[in-house]
Amino acid sequence: MISTPFSDEYFMNKALEEAGVASEEGEVPIGAVLVVNKRIIGRGHNQIEKLHDITAHAEIIALSAASNHLGSKYLKNCTLYVTLEPCAMCAAAINAAQIETLVFGANDPKKGYQLYKPKLIHPKVKIKAGIMKEECIQVLKDFFTKKRTKNDNRSKNY
Amino acid sequence: MISTPFSDEYFMNKALEEAGVASEEGEVPIGAVLVVNKRIIGRGHNQIEKLHDITAHAEIIALSAASNHLGSKYLKNCTLYVTLEPCAMCAAAINAAQIETLVFGANDPKKGYQLYKPKLIHPKVKIKAGIMKEECIQVLKDFFTKKRTKNDNRSKNY
Repeated sequence: MISTPFSDEYFMNKALEEAGVASEEGEVPIGAVLVVNKRIIGRGHNQIEKLHDITAHAEIIALSAASNHLGSKYLKNCTLYVTLEPCAMCAAAINAAQIETLVFGANDPKKGYQLYKPKLIHPKVKIKAGIMKEECIQVLKDFFTKKRTKNDNRSKNY
Repeated sequence: MISTPFSDEYFMNKALEEAGVASEEGEVPIGAVLVVNKRIIGRGHNQIEKLHDITAHAEIIALSAASNHLGSKYLKNCTLYVTLEPCAMCAAAINAAQIETLVFGANDPKKGYQLYKPKLIHPKVKIKAGIMKEECIQVLKDFFTKKRTKNDNRSKNY
């Protein structure tokens, strides 16, 4: 897909690049970037396995990086792009950071934050869902297909 | 309160010590310790202001420290002691880490995880609420009273 500079697709592509890095490291490919005034100030990809840390989600890493960059716990006027709908933990963190806009690609009907009531994200936060949805789903599908094939080949050897 | 070694009160006292450190650093006094086989393998106190990071809650820091210590993303057979009922973000992290038992002191009726449906913590996780509740509330009350007095004195100077 062609993406104009600084469009939602442009930044979601950057989040997909982060997902690609996760995939290469054997992590479930989820990526995120944090943007203010069309500049990326935080990047993150899932690092749960590498860091042995269940909190090392792409969003949390991107949020912490951006907070560190700005020297502020609040990320007002910022937009978070993430390839998959955030889980409850990440949604609560996004909410607490008071980001302006959340943009996500694929929906996560099993673990996504939208399952919970009362809403984990304040209604003032703008939300755009489904940006480059197909690409965001594909990167996950490819990862799990590859993983299954690898496991099948491994079991054939025993 | 006298606490027998390795009782819930003993470890909650350790979490209160962490809350005390937070207070000294000007942070809302919330503390946590992560325990396995009667040994503390992770400690944490609220560091939101110091780190400019909204995710730097006592529980998240204690969980990450314990995961790092064990080299495992899962914290089965572990008990988390925390002075205040966890928020949604921390509850989701606690749940994902598959800890065995959560022990908390004071309830947080405004921001506590128990507000949310479906439940953020799996029913298999044992939960003990209200351990050293009064002490856990008191440390928060003292902090906010001191802060208000400080602000009042400051405004008198202008």
